[in-house]
Amino acid sequence: MNNSFGNIYRLTTFGESHGPAIGGIIDGIPSNLDINIEKIQLALNKRKPGQSSLSTPRKENDIVEILSGIYKNKTLGSPIGFIIRNHDIKSNDYDENIYRPSHGDFTYEAKYKIRDYRGGGRASARETACRIVAGEIAKQILNQIAKINVYTCISQIGNIKINENSDNEIFKKEIEDEILKVKKTGDSIGGKISCIIDCPVGLGEPVYNKLQSELSSAMFSIPGVKGFEYGLGFDFCNKKGSEVNDEFYSDGINIFTKSNNSGGIQGGISNGQPIYFNVAFKPTPSISIEQSTIDKDLNNIHTKIKGRHDPCIVPRALYVVEAMTYIVMLDQIMMNRSKSFY
Amino acid sequence: MNNSFGNIYRLTTFGESHGPAIGGIIDGIPSNLDINIEKIQLALNKRKPGQSSLSTPRKENDIVEILSGIYKNKTLGSPIGFIIRNHDIKSNDYDENIYRPSHGDFTYEAKYKIRDYRGGGRASARETACRIVAGEIAKQILNQIAKINVYTCISQIGNIKINENSDNEIFKKEIEDEILKVKKTGDSIGGKISCIIDCPVGLGEPVYNKLQSELSSAMFSIPGVKGFEYGLGFDFCNKKGSEVNDEFYSDGINIFTKSNNSGGIQGGISNGQPIYFNVAFKPTPSISIEQSTIDKDLNNIHTKIKGRHDPCIVPRALYVVEAMTYIVMLDQIMMNRSKSFY
Amino acid sequence: MNNSFGNIYRLTTFGESHGPAIGGIIDGIPSNLDINIEKIQLALNKRKPGQSSLSTPRKENDIVEILSGIYKNKTLGSPIGFIIRNHDIKSNDYDENIYRPSHGDFTYEAKYKIRDYRGGGRASARETACRIVAGEIAKQILNQIAKINVYTCISQIGNIKINENSDNEIFKKEIEDEILKVKKTGDSIGGKISCIIDCPVGLGEPVYNKLQSELSSAMFSIPGVKGFEYGLGFDFCNKKGSEVNDEFYSDGINIFTKSNNSGGIQGGISNGQPIYFNVAFKPTPSISIEQSTIDKDLNNIHTKIKGRHDPCIVPRALYVVEAMTYIVMLDQIMMNRSKSFY
Amino acid sequence: MNNSFGNIYRLTTFGESHGPAIGGIIDGIPSNLDINIEKIQLALNKRKPGQSSLSTPRKENDIVEILSGIYKNKTLGSPIGFIIRNHDIKSNDYDENIYRPSHGDFTYEAKYKIRDYRGGGRASARETACRIVAGEIAKQILNQIAKINVYTCISQIGNIKINENSDNEIFKKEIEDEILKVKKTGDSIGGKISCIIDCPVGLGEPVYNKLQSELSSAMFSIPGVKGFEYGLGFDFCNKKGSEVNDEFYSDGINIFTKSNNSGGIQGGISNGQPIYFNVAFKPTPSISIEQSTIDKDLNNIHTKIKGRHDPCIVPRALYVVEAMTYIVMLDQIMMNRSKSFY
Repeated sequence: MNNSFGNIYRLTTFGESHGPAIGGIIDGIPSNLDINIEKIQLALNKRKPGQSSLSTPRKENDIVEILSGIYKNKTLGSPIGFIIRNHDIKSNDYDENIYRPSHGDFTYEAKYKIRDYRGGGRASARETACRIVAGEIAKQILNQIAKINVYTCISQIGNIKINENSDNEIFKKEIEDEILKVKKTGDSIGGKISCIIDCPVGLGEPVYNKLQSELSSAMFSIPGVKGFEYGLGFDFCNKKGSEVNDEFYSDGINIFTKSNNSGGIQGGISNGQPIYFNVAFKPTPSISIEQSTIDKDLNNIHTKIKGRHDPCIVPRALYVVEAMTYIVMLDQIMMNRSKSFY
Repeated sequence: MNNSFGNIYRLTTFGESHGPAIGGIIDGIPSNLDINIEKIQLALNKRKPGQSSLSTPRKENDIVEILSGIYKNKTLGSPIGFIIRNHDIKSNDYDENIYRPSHGDFTYEAKYKIRDYRGGGRASARETACRIVAGEIAKQILNQIAKINVYTCISQIGNIKINENSDNEIFKKEIEDEILKVKKTGDSIGGKISCIIDCPVGLGEPVYNKLQSELSSAMFSIPGVKGFEYGLGFDFCNKKGSEVNDEFYSDGINIFTKSNNSGGIQGGISNGQPIYFNVAFKPTPSISIEQSTIDKDLNNIHTKIKGRHDPCIVPRALYVVEAMTYIVMLDQIMMNRSKSFY
Repeated sequence: MNNSFGNIYRLTTFGESHGPAIGGIIDGIPSNLDINIEKIQLALNKRKPGQSSLSTPRKENDIVEILSGIYKNKTLGSPIGFIIRNHDIKSNDYDENIYRPSHGDFTYEAKYKIRDYRGGGRASARETACRIVAGEIAKQILNQIAKINVYTCISQIGNIKINENSDNEIFKKEIEDEILKVKKTGDSIGGKISCIIDCPVGLGEPVYNKLQSELSSAMFSIPGVKGFEYGLGFDFCNKKGSEVNDEFYSDGINIFTKSNNSGGIQGGISNGQPIYFNVAFKPTPSISIEQSTIDKDLNNIHTKIKGRHDPCIVPRALYVVEAMTYIVMLDQIMMNRSKSFY
Repeated sequence: MNNSFGNIYRLTTFGESHGPAIGGIIDGIPSNLDINIEKIQLALNKRKPGQSSLSTPRKENDIVEILSGIYKNKTLGSPIGFIIRNHDIKSNDYDENIYRPSHGDFTYEAKYKIRDYRGGGRASARETACRIVAGEIAKQILNQIAKINVYTCISQIGNIKINENSDNEIFKKEIEDEILKVKKTGDSIGGKISCIIDCPVGLGEPVYNKLQSELSSAMFSIPGVKGFEYGLGFDFCNKKGSEVNDEFYSDGINIFTKSNNSGGIQGGISNGQPIYFNVAFKPTPSISIEQSTIDKDLNNIHTKIKGRHDPCIVPRALYVVEAMTYIVMLDQIMMNRSKSFY
């Protein structure tokens, strides 16, 4: 198994959902920069479960303990090790012998010949808490060395879609209603997250490390992600070049494009226009409605999934999308710098 | 710049579109397996330009010369080096001073402060010829060590979409007509490629090297790709868990799923059902219709793109999608094997 | 900074000497193999300080806490995260403003513009405790999947050198005397560790990942190492081919060499004969004899190093040499396996 | 097999000794820097065989053809691909069925189950010609972006050793005589190369990528290398801290050390003093004196090695040591830069 992400700014994580702790090591940290440790905890608090009626009632304290790499609120250049202890574990909710539909139970056991069935083990989305830590640190570092900002929003839950005229508060209310409605029936629902990045020209590469490759790889590492598109994305399929090419123009000093169908990336490299992309999420496979499935002895059985689960992954995944984007962007800044000598 | 792809089975490529040659090195080759060199050339012939009225009239001979790693039609375990000389170059068709709309000209120069403008230089899709070589070798190796097959097809060109009832020959004729129609107007058109993989249980990993992450990263490294989805993909966004979960059942010996909305991957790992995914392509940015743009001195100008270009990337990209898929799958087989001791 | 070692079996560590904890993540673990956690603690106990009059009186409890990757004494295939809390810290022994001679104080601060001066920070040999954990796990895994054994011994302390006729007990007594003699004067002393590996044919590669490259890289990552040689090593410089070539012979079934001047590796690959190598260690730079040096304001000053230090690194480094060797050997076995399909 | 070296500035090579060509790809090239292609050929000429009575009479033209990455004598930032055709091949000199003593014939075949026996195949030192190309390019780049110089010399051939009072011309004459004397008897001889690097403070890292680890790994990747030591090296084994610690002093502006026993590296990081190291080479295993060995059918036989070989590797290896050192140093400069934002 490989549990690292990133080329230079590099996160490695460990931990099973119901083991003693999860945690990680962030390597490739530039030294002598400011870190606000409280803000790391605040970022974690946003993602943590039990926050609202929309998410799982599992109440993790999710207290991050930073063990190295920061001294007197400055990065030492050495790796940042951290752990988050697991609490409020109800392993009895999980049945060792059942492969839950559309979960990773069956594939994990088929591949590794062993499985920690409790809470999904290594395959649990709980791992993403570590990404929030690394994402917040990336954000704090980026604030000091580059001009990059990441904005994320929920753009669809079920049939509720955002549009240009959407009122933020009303849209927020609508998707809450949609999720609660589904929750009541013991079911779950899919959705979409959109992300915009303000970033300078020159990030990404023309062949294998295209900026879109790095971003898509980051997004598809998030549990439940089934699609990624940037710029016009799948809408390009029925478009003509003359309709969608982004023409350049200049005021004599700066360079702009008349449209931004490319989504801020051309030839694998950011062009200075806003980058934007969409990420599709499937509904949480954990539902309390009865489903048919099999057990380890290959008996066909019926099951209702116990355990405490989010009826929709999207609201909490929002913070993970943001974190992974910051990780990619800092990594890109550092890769660029390693080859810049002009 | 990073010009390598793959973890263990690893392709590194070089070459500018109008330089003396392109080529590559494939490392991580398992030894003592059969290689049919003629078939490598045949695979290359399929992708090469000038084959039909649908593609660019540039007539590359595209003769691959294998320089190492194969001895008496067997792999030596050593790296396979190969080159493909560039011929029929018309560099005069390209203007050093103009940034073509929606091309990588501007971003390459902004990032690297220098550019080989002839034929797109390193950013040219010509690089993908090297992937055909590595993909065919991966395919030949896979044939000897695993049960993996890859099937690709064009599923959309412009408004022409494949559906369950499509007659293959008629659909083929329709998309040819669509492309030729666009070509006559000097314009270009987008499209979609679909891919199915027959593959055993157990490829991919639960966290950062999920099979979908590896595949999406491979696809987004192909020029012109703007979207990737697998299983139901973006259609998951408005689905409920109870509608789309894939329930398991068994005949007492094997394990199946009643539906395959997951697209053959669960928890990042293949589950033995067919993997399927879609790749969205934008229209070729090179069109002979007049467009406005800028030159290097930031003058606003008008340009008609000369050079010989495909009106639609999709027909030739089909072979690149297939090749990249074989590369990923062999790499996955080798990664699995490194950790399997039962 | 890069804090990872290994290609497939891969250890990443974190931690400053006087921070809250050190620890690591071991990735690339083959699944479903037995792990005896008690033996990991026992291995750590051997290396830990305060064991005898020969080593630093700092008394670390050095209790390793395994946080993931092992379930019911079996590897899950997921990463093994672990931490070792730091105790008995006397940071007051260290002076923030002084660059100790032949230590990493000056270079760390010159490179990173910041330094955790307490106990050497990240540059402390305390980090090697994590390698003991990864080495013991590698050893336990190797026991189940390969025939590899590692033997290490001290072969020189100061002028006391081992030879073919050395009596083990007497030699051990002599080097203890030598170290204690030096310790009394507040000085320190260098030495040499020798290592023998019983291993099968076929580990290592012919070009960049030669087995000797991997071993030497592992050894030079240990603090205080100044030289590495294998086989006849530096004694080859004045030898003729006819004197030192290892002639093959066979009993019709197996292959042997008449001599083993090559040290068990030919063309970068193990040949089935015992591998043997020597590692040279400098004396601990920490001595309580007065030395001249500078402070951060570039004043020339005199200093006597406080803190609790080993008069000789070699006795405790013995376990680190062994651990790193096991890590390299398991990694090699896994790299081999990834490409073996016959 | 892994055929890449370097972290950011990264050389990948291919080629068998008697195949059509050898070559490589250099990736991670900083863009827009000057390259003098003629000097690359000149560097290659120095190393090439057939230059003097001291080396093998095989007369390679060794003409390097640069295929990409350089345009109008400037780096494009894209990978530099190059090939060197093989000429003057006498494959008949090699016997497919015989394992030559102390060569890689046996181990290669045991590992890979197949072998290109002609001229040593992939295990041939001919591969090092590619390193000369990458080393010369690294040197040219370093000249433009850093203050690093590498000096190498032969310090021992057989019993002839350099010392402080050696007259260069006389020493040169003596080692030539020594090599020719050995050559006449059909034998070969070992030797030692010493290297000094002038380099700034701050290259290398405190834990796994110590500068000495990177250098030793580079040196042990060169065929025939059996030992590496830096600073006092193995002479540290019988030294006391008080004798060999390098005390700092300052003139109020700069920092110096009174001695340089550390060899310019402390705590894994260069301290601004000259780096120096020694590399031990074994005698060429190819000798024309009769030796006993085995064939592939495990018959014990006698053989006299035909083929054209150097009686001593050291004179030509000198250029490879220099090249690998430049590669490591440029890579270090680029790794440093990726994390430097002050």
